Amino acid sequence: MTKKLVFGHSNPDTDAIVAAIAYSHLLNQLGEETEAVALGTPNEETQFALRHFDYSAPRVIAAAKPEVEAVVLVDHNESQQSVSDLAEVEITNIVDHHKFALETAAPLFIRAEALGATSSILLKMYNENKVEIPAQIAGLMLSAIISDTLLLKSPTTTEFDKIAVKTLAEIADVDFESYGLEMLKAGTNLSTKTELELLEGDAKSFEMGGKTVRIGQVNTVDIAEVFERQAALEEAMAAEITKNGYDLFLFVVTNILTSDSELLVVGEPTAPVEAAFNGTLTNNRLALPGVVSRKKQVVPPLTASF
Amino acid sequence: MTKKLVFGHSNPDTDAIVAAIAYSHLLNQLGEETEAVALGTPNEETQFALRHFDYSAPRVIAAAKPEVEAVVLVDHNESQQSVSDLAEVEITNIVDHHKFALETAAPLFIRAEALGATSSILLKMYNENKVEIPAQIAGLMLSAIISDTLLLKSPTTTEFDKIAVKTLAEIADVDFESYGLEMLKAGTNLSTKTELELLEGDAKSFEMGGKTVRIGQVNTVDIAEVFERQAALEEAMAAEITKNGYDLFLFVVTNILTSDSELLVVGEPTAPVEAAFNGTLTNNRLALPGVVSRKKQVVPPLTASF
Repeated sequence: MTKKLVFGHSNPDTDAIVAAIAYSHLLNQLGEETEAVALGTPNEETQFALRHFDYSAPRVIAAAKPEVEAVVLVDHNESQQSVSDLAEVEITNIVDHHKFALETAAPLFIRAEALGATSSILLKMYNENKVEIPAQIAGLMLSAIISDTLLLKSPTTTEFDKIAVKTLAEIADVDFESYGLEMLKAGTNLSTKTELELLEGDAKSFEMGGKTVRIGQVNTVDIAEVFERQAALEEAMAAEITKNGYDLFLFVVTNILTSDSELLVVGEPTAPVEAAFNGTLTNNRLALPGVVSRKKQVVPPLTASF
Repeated sequence: MTKKLVFGHSNPDTDAIVAAIAYSHLLNQLGEETEAVALGTPNEETQFALRHFDYSAPRVIAAAKPEVEAVVLVDHNESQQSVSDLAEVEITNIVDHHKFALETAAPLFIRAEALGATSSILLKMYNENKVEIPAQIAGLMLSAIISDTLLLKSPTTTEFDKIAVKTLAEIADVDFESYGLEMLKAGTNLSTKTELELLEGDAKSFEMGGKTVRIGQVNTVDIAEVFERQAALEEAMAAEITKNGYDLFLFVVTNILTSDSELLVVGEPTAPVEAAFNGTLTNNRLALPGVVSRKKQVVPPLTASF
């Protein structure tokens, strides 16, 4: 049995870090030899969760080779969001809750479901395999589901996510509502961050109608505070477009208390963006009332529009 | 709840037909409204199984619309092997044991595993959902696993497939070895078939290094008998290449008693084929000793070579 690395997407959010930890533990309990790693350092929200449940952050890697020949992907499946050398290694397992853009050379294990978080799918897999979840890992999985569903408020939330949060909160012995709000707020301390950190902290690239669209998102409790830095943000977005060859950069600023967002757009073409959200950009901005989920409320209408 | 159609790949083999029947039944037991259909009429082997377990063949469709807006794919995931209008409908579920080449607009349910047949994965899903398998459907699932693994002899066979065959044979109340050989032989009556029927009966298209490679396969108990028709087969392969814009047509003739194959090749480029199997084409033919599995022993070396 050769060792495999387990990791979530680059610019890891809490679910990307935690799903790697939780799936690696499950695979090891089932007799495999795996290690959870990460494609970036944990963000402040994730660090809060790791500290709270006294768990070490996974080490950061950029490439899989030469360390391993086989990898396990969690919380992503698109090569653009993965290690730089994904095409050179074998993907043996994927557990994910996103849309798929995947090409493999051989059959593999995939477990995907449109649940609120990859950690919810992993709870099912622990149950099916009758493997006990350690309290620390249960606390982290709980954090990941709260993070991805904004405390079960996002439209991506399913009935199973609600059951999962209660089940995991019991194992971890925490009040998920008070803990969850504290954890989300820990991730909204934006004042100490540079513009680039705000934009790129959770950014992902998507191919849409032949264009490369970069979409970043931040959570906040005060949207106006973020837009005080609009000029500097636009400058940084334009610089990223030039540097990385993106066509378009979208920045979604989400108020976790009201569950609304505002969009900032730099690059071309902007017409499909206006069409996708049925609005007109004013000063490069567009209000997105009721929008909190990039995956469910931003990417699908954009993909359809492009 | 809107109705969904469940189907396997075009040119359906026994697993493609049966997995649709078995998954549709499971989904309906779980409260969905689905119908198993097929992208072609069952081959002789499948017809033997359907007759033996007294089950009607699913009706044949070519397109999903306008009948439904959402579909469930079994035993395939590549659009080339699916309905003509796959891009215009939503894929909500996939259960498959092949390599992946998939792009979706939204998250979906996927269950994939490198088992010998999709029907083996479905047995796991019946068990996990605690849904009883009717004896007729168990007999069909048994037939599908025997078909895909050539009576558990193919290198694609896993330990779970062996357990699955025993479990399903018990529910269906058949001796799987004698039944299985009888069923496989029913699929090898090639004399009544035209060259095109032989070539296309189980053919699939694959994109390899920018080339479209068509790969057909037949099972037989006498390879020499098939190659008595080599000239006519080559003529039909060349005509299919011209008609459909393939670059290359590969025809794998497999002896189910000795577990060896012989390859017939028409089209260009042939150098990657020779490199993939480490041999030289003589009279457009290449012996493939020990090769029985297109998925595991033909497609991966070809993909790597191209």
